[in-house]
Amino acid sequence: MSAFVSALVESIPYIQKFRDKTVVIKLGGSLADSPEGRRSILQDIVLLSLVGMKIVLVHGGGKEISKRLDRMGIESEFIGGYRVTGDAAITEVEMVLTGRINTELTLMLNNGGIKAVGISGKDGGWLEATPKQVGEGDIGHVGEVSNVDPTLINLLMTGGYTPIISPIGHDKDGKTFNINADDVASAVAVAVGAEKLILMTDVNGVYKNFPDPASFVSKLGLAEAKEILETVKGGMIPKLTCAINAIEQGVHTVHLLNGSTPHSLLVEVFSDSGIGTMIER
Amino acid sequence: MSAFVSALVESIPYIQKFRDKTVVIKLGGSLADSPEGRRSILQDIVLLSLVGMKIVLVHGGGKEISKRLDRMGIESEFIGGYRVTGDAAITEVEMVLTGRINTELTLMLNNGGIKAVGISGKDGGWLEATPKQVGEGDIGHVGEVSNVDPTLINLLMTGGYTPIISPIGHDKDGKTFNINADDVASAVAVAVGAEKLILMTDVNGVYKNFPDPASFVSKLGLAEAKEILETVKGGMIPKLTCAINAIEQGVHTVHLLNGSTPHSLLVEVFSDSGIGTMIER
Amino acid sequence: MSAFVSALVESIPYIQKFRDKTVVIKLGGSLADSPEGRRSILQDIVLLSLVGMKIVLVHGGGKEISKRLDRMGIESEFIGGYRVTGDAAITEVEMVLTGRINTELTLMLNNGGIKAVGISGKDGGWLEATPKQVGEGDIGHVGEVSNVDPTLINLLMTGGYTPIISPIGHDKDGKTFNINADDVASAVAVAVGAEKLILMTDVNGVYKNFPDPASFVSKLGLAEAKEILETVKGGMIPKLTCAINAIEQGVHTVHLLNGSTPHSLLVEVFSDSGIGTMIER
Amino acid sequence: MSAFVSALVESIPYIQKFRDKTVVIKLGGSLADSPEGRRSILQDIVLLSLVGMKIVLVHGGGKEISKRLDRMGIESEFIGGYRVTGDAAITEVEMVLTGRINTELTLMLNNGGIKAVGISGKDGGWLEATPKQVGEGDIGHVGEVSNVDPTLINLLMTGGYTPIISPIGHDKDGKTFNINADDVASAVAVAVGAEKLILMTDVNGVYKNFPDPASFVSKLGLAEAKEILETVKGGMIPKLTCAINAIEQGVHTVHLLNGSTPHSLLVEVFSDSGIGTMIER
Amino acid sequence: MSAFVSALVESIPYIQKFRDKTVVIKLGGSLADSPEGRRSILQDIVLLSLVGMKIVLVHGGGKEISKRLDRMGIESEFIGGYRVTGDAAITEVEMVLTGRINTELTLMLNNGGIKAVGISGKDGGWLEATPKQVGEGDIGHVGEVSNVDPTLINLLMTGGYTPIISPIGHDKDGKTFNINADDVASAVAVAVGAEKLILMTDVNGVYKNFPDPASFVSKLGLAEAKEILETVKGGMIPKLTCAINAIEQGVHTVHLLNGSTPHSLLVEVFSDSGIGTMIER
Amino acid sequence: MSAFVSALVESIPYIQKFRDKTVVIKLGGSLADSPEGRRSILQDIVLLSLVGMKIVLVHGGGKEISKRLDRMGIESEFIGGYRVTGDAAITEVEMVLTGRINTELTLMLNNGGIKAVGISGKDGGWLEATPKQVGEGDIGHVGEVSNVDPTLINLLMTGGYTPIISPIGHDKDGKTFNINADDVASAVAVAVGAEKLILMTDVNGVYKNFPDPASFVSKLGLAEAKEILETVKGGMIPKLTCAINAIEQGVHTVHLLNGSTPHSLLVEVFSDSGIGTMIER
Repeated sequence: MSAFVSALVESIPYIQKFRDKTVVIKLGGSLADSPEGRRSILQDIVLLSLVGMKIVLVHGGGKEISKRLDRMGIESEFIGGYRVTGDAAITEVEMVLTGRINTELTLMLNNGGIKAVGISGKDGGWLEATPKQVGEGDIGHVGEVSNVDPTLINLLMTGGYTPIISPIGHDKDGKTFNINADDVASAVAVAVGAEKLILMTDVNGVYKNFPDPASFVSKLGLAEAKEILETVKGGMIPKLTCAINAIEQGVHTVHLLNGSTPHSLLVEVFSDSGIGTMIER
Repeated sequence: MSAFVSALVESIPYIQKFRDKTVVIKLGGSLADSPEGRRSILQDIVLLSLVGMKIVLVHGGGKEISKRLDRMGIESEFIGGYRVTGDAAITEVEMVLTGRINTELTLMLNNGGIKAVGISGKDGGWLEATPKQVGEGDIGHVGEVSNVDPTLINLLMTGGYTPIISPIGHDKDGKTFNINADDVASAVAVAVGAEKLILMTDVNGVYKNFPDPASFVSKLGLAEAKEILETVKGGMIPKLTCAINAIEQGVHTVHLLNGSTPHSLLVEVFSDSGIGTMIER
Repeated sequence: MSAFVSALVESIPYIQKFRDKTVVIKLGGSLADSPEGRRSILQDIVLLSLVGMKIVLVHGGGKEISKRLDRMGIESEFIGGYRVTGDAAITEVEMVLTGRINTELTLMLNNGGIKAVGISGKDGGWLEATPKQVGEGDIGHVGEVSNVDPTLINLLMTGGYTPIISPIGHDKDGKTFNINADDVASAVAVAVGAEKLILMTDVNGVYKNFPDPASFVSKLGLAEAKEILETVKGGMIPKLTCAINAIEQGVHTVHLLNGSTPHSLLVEVFSDSGIGTMIER
Repeated sequence: MSAFVSALVESIPYIQKFRDKTVVIKLGGSLADSPEGRRSILQDIVLLSLVGMKIVLVHGGGKEISKRLDRMGIESEFIGGYRVTGDAAITEVEMVLTGRINTELTLMLNNGGIKAVGISGKDGGWLEATPKQVGEGDIGHVGEVSNVDPTLINLLMTGGYTPIISPIGHDKDGKTFNINADDVASAVAVAVGAEKLILMTDVNGVYKNFPDPASFVSKLGLAEAKEILETVKGGMIPKLTCAINAIEQGVHTVHLLNGSTPHSLLVEVFSDSGIGTMIER
Repeated sequence: MSAFVSALVESIPYIQKFRDKTVVIKLGGSLADSPEGRRSILQDIVLLSLVGMKIVLVHGGGKEISKRLDRMGIESEFIGGYRVTGDAAITEVEMVLTGRINTELTLMLNNGGIKAVGISGKDGGWLEATPKQVGEGDIGHVGEVSNVDPTLINLLMTGGYTPIISPIGHDKDGKTFNINADDVASAVAVAVGAEKLILMTDVNGVYKNFPDPASFVSKLGLAEAKEILETVKGGMIPKLTCAINAIEQGVHTVHLLNGSTPHSLLVEVFSDSGIGTMIER
Repeated sequence: MSAFVSALVESIPYIQKFRDKTVVIKLGGSLADSPEGRRSILQDIVLLSLVGMKIVLVHGGGKEISKRLDRMGIESEFIGGYRVTGDAAITEVEMVLTGRINTELTLMLNNGGIKAVGISGKDGGWLEATPKQVGEGDIGHVGEVSNVDPTLINLLMTGGYTPIISPIGHDKDGKTFNINADDVASAVAVAVGAEKLILMTDVNGVYKNFPDPASFVSKLGLAEAKEILETVKGGMIPKLTCAINAIEQGVHTVHLLNGSTPHSLLVEVFSDSGIGTMIER
């Protein structure tokens, strides 16, 4: 009983600090593939909502997209690490993202006791995209964020709903694009004036010399983050770039967090040291 | 130029009559299969919205669901005319409805100049369902409407958005159900206090003696509708039942309309005689 | 039926463009004298209101004032084209404008299905005037706009009412002034931030070389309008000056239109080429 | 200085009692003819407004109408005491009421420091009338109140404006009617839920045995008022009937008051005994 | 870290249940005397506020009043267990309650991070009292609640403030009364439509056979509570009566709780079994 | 009756001028000691409230504090004219100010018919203080205003309540301070954007050569006030400094007024010449 009480009492200052603040959370690829991982993260999201934070959740698609494309017999060419996405593929991608992962997350959160509403960028046309340029041309229905109109997201939050975002946008001619979910989360965080952007990923955060545990960094200023960006490799490059962009456009802190560590979200938000890497101006 | 002006002037009394009124429109199965038919209907919906009606659109899935299930190699058993829908099937059904037809309609309406937002019954958990009973048991993930909470739909309309509804609901344990779109449209019309419910279908309306053109009925009172219900056959039975239920629960008029006649929606709403069958109390 | 539908469909982009925009319309002198002309114009105004524009109507008095003064045996001296208006005359002028033309327009619009409210500048004291200077002195109760407070007009529009304005103002000592209706319309358009100011008149618009039809101008930029102002004559000088002033103070477009052409208002607003002269920045 | 202070202090309980209450005041015929009388009454109205009462003023036309008709050479037949009002007459009547008396009262009140807005029953169509039946037929454009919609009056009061009402109404066909101002005031008082209806007239109030001063009555219950109605004569019959109707439909008190006694309005409202006759349930 | 997380996760269902519910807490006499006890309770109140409950705190005075009266040399007579409170005494009582205990609680809560506002029943005159009758007469400035107007309390809660209530009321003549704080808390709970009333006291709750621990009762229905009321003794009689009254007037549950057990408030609200006695309909 | 009416009529322009304006009134020391003086002032405050001014009242403590400290046997040392206030003293000071004078003023105003709510700076923590520096050190619990947050005061005024302020503040560590009431009134006037600050005191206002009546000054510009500040003596120095500060930070006028002259407040506000000294920019 005593541990119960003391945990509650310890959480007071963090609850005070982030109450009524908007927090955009990106739920990453392989996490989205594990029902158990999702459940643990969703439980954390429910608690953060209950103590007064305003959550916006953005999800990716990860392995489920690959599995579906395989099953439908759609082969994929890759250019510069990006899947070239043709007309047949984007139809399947959108169905998986908006019709399956998004609806499942929405249902789970509603069952958890908060009121979630799933949207993609097509709803109210809030997410405008342009073709992503790789090398000399575009790669089909893969896009980049060109504009975010936060009106619908704000309306839903004002009505007490938690928006769950599928990273699908379109251009002015109505062409559909699959967009990197980190980039969507970052652009949404900027547009709604979020306090925090939390990027859930598969690694613990930033290492100066990956994977040496001694080189792990808990907290980074903006200048330092830019320096480290010169040395990190692989998937950490776009993550860190995304984080730096968000900070520079006004988001207060960005967190890189290992979503597969149970309840890492609670620990990161409700303690000083945290468990991942926090980047601030 | 003169025809242009006189058309506008003739439309004045209808615009006056239905301004700020809520109209729920069910876009039927085979219509949803023809891109041209959709385009014509969506153009009509845009115009109705612009002159001040508040539209809620409910769509079904029709042939696209069958095609997808065939392609995925999921065989269907039918009981009492209903497809028995197992776990593998409902996943595909939801992806087609929420992830494909709904997103396409939403995009087309946004391109047409109104702000549409696609939702299914899972968003905010507004559409509660129970298993549909056929004979002695249920038939998997096929459901019936048990409760509608109009809060989210009203919030979207207040914000100037047109809700586009995918007929997916769930029960309290989180089990997903595919629900007949006519029934969803009818329940929504009752819950939001709609002036009109318009069921777009493949036939012109009600015939006392189908298909004798002389037996076509343009206007029906409630009592007469109940009488005719005794004699009609096939798909008209549930349509007419659905219409009668809506009227009895307060919807002002219900229209049965052939969606494949171009601009039948405009003609029905903007003329006295109309083109389909109108049922009123 | 087909012409009806196609007219409606063609009007969509114009309805979209001007929905919720404020349009100030000046109904000119001799128009106000013809019941048929008024009826046609009022029908157009009703339609524009119904499709979502926010109309403010300003009227003049024209021949009805002269007729009344004659009948009352009040002779008029003219200086510089202006009627010198003494105490006896202004009483009659105000009764005709506020007590007769204004009440008749209001009644006709209410019968047409919109909610119109007649006001003069004395209501809430929103229209402050100063004596018009002509040559070396003033000319009695003829005034110029010195200040417009749009609060009452905005309150009425917020309440869903269409304001109908009689061009009577007063100074701080309570002296009553008859003011040129074009100038009132222009000042109101500026004060309420109108999208359009439409001056209904007796000629078709601006001619570079009046009345040579080949010299008619459909569209004018601000600079060009100022040039042409050097060459036009007669009543077109104050009209064009009034239009230029409105544009320079923020009104988006000003239209000069022949009110005696039936439904010229609809055609001007609902087509690209229009039928009168449009002036824009 | 001491009298000044003590007057203010004495007024406190009355100010407390009627603050934020709605008071409908009918300004009677011959009062409206004397500029001095109007000025004194308007000064009282300004003060009542300033200390927080919400005033609605209804005026009649009185001698000014007769003078105008004489001047225009329109002869009047009288049936049962009512002037038979033809088409030519009603035009003049409306111009005098809405275009002259109403605008003058509005201007004087605005100069006094409150924001007055003149309306007739045609504005927003709030005052529906039917022809007054006298003997076997109607008497032209003389009407009776058939319906009052208080929306516009309430909108103006909410916006801080004092409505000044010209007693002109119309029927559904747009026919104009002159209506008895006492009846309009009474119907408005009922429709807006007024605390008080004050009928300013030429006599001091109700006498049981007119004009014996000893028979003057300061205060009347409803039952007593009905009794006295059997014995009073002349113009007091419709006044008292009007008062009784207002009380029976929910107005708290009705006051009959001699408007030609200077500041009788202030004395009536700001003292216990008052100066006229007060009727209460 | 794990205990921390599991405590937070366990608290979710209770937070969900009582979020946005109003809870009135009576902080009892001897608790108010111990700074440590107060601090622990106030910490609990801060947490309950942060997770979304709307708290109203009512305090008594306890020993501090006696101490002050002793120090001022005011001797007290007791009748029927009540201190007869003369004019000199009530001045001191009010100064201790409103000027000392209330200000100290308010300050401590503000330091704890919530916005507390201290009020007594004199503020806005929301708490009307009548003299308490004991035997044949009253006992000076000791009163009973006769009316509660919740307007001020609701205004403060709407503004995000936590009301802290000193149990001082007055009658219509302005006579000041000290009122039993349990009774004030109960009346406030009824007036604001509270979900819970929590009476913090010096004993653990209700015993069927005090002080036999085996006879402790955790949960009581209303009928059972009335039965037990026949057998309990001493201070428990008015407490239980107060609880029963609150339940009968619509408060959902009443809790009797030992305030000297550290964090008993958190444990009672955040667990199923609780730690005190809960009474429900 | 005539004097009554003429007093009301004379007050009209002043009522017009200050309606809806916020007026902060400081009720001075020795006034607070006389029940009769308070009653007269409170009556004036009730009237000013009723005619539409928004009053905020700030009171001091004066002799009542000295009396209480004497009675409690707490001796006071004075440094630079300030009472050194230790822990025992501040407890008594706060009880007198917040628990006695404030509650009495609140009760009297409520009885007078306005809704007053007593607050100290601890309520919602709106009044932050720092220790007052006198010579080389501080003098215990005597403070200076360091910050005013007007949110609570504005909330109460919006709700129709008149705030009555006890001049007690605290620092961030929760240490309590007694603050000069003139300074609190001045800081509040600035924070709420008051039109007027009225400092009620024991002398008639500013004398160039005190106490020569011929040297009395009715009206002072800011520059002149600064000049005179060089020559005045005693208690007038901090009063005049306080007035000058308020003017420089945006308060429109400051009045120094002799509170012991009956109804001086009414006369000052409701006449041109006034009775005290008015300072304006």
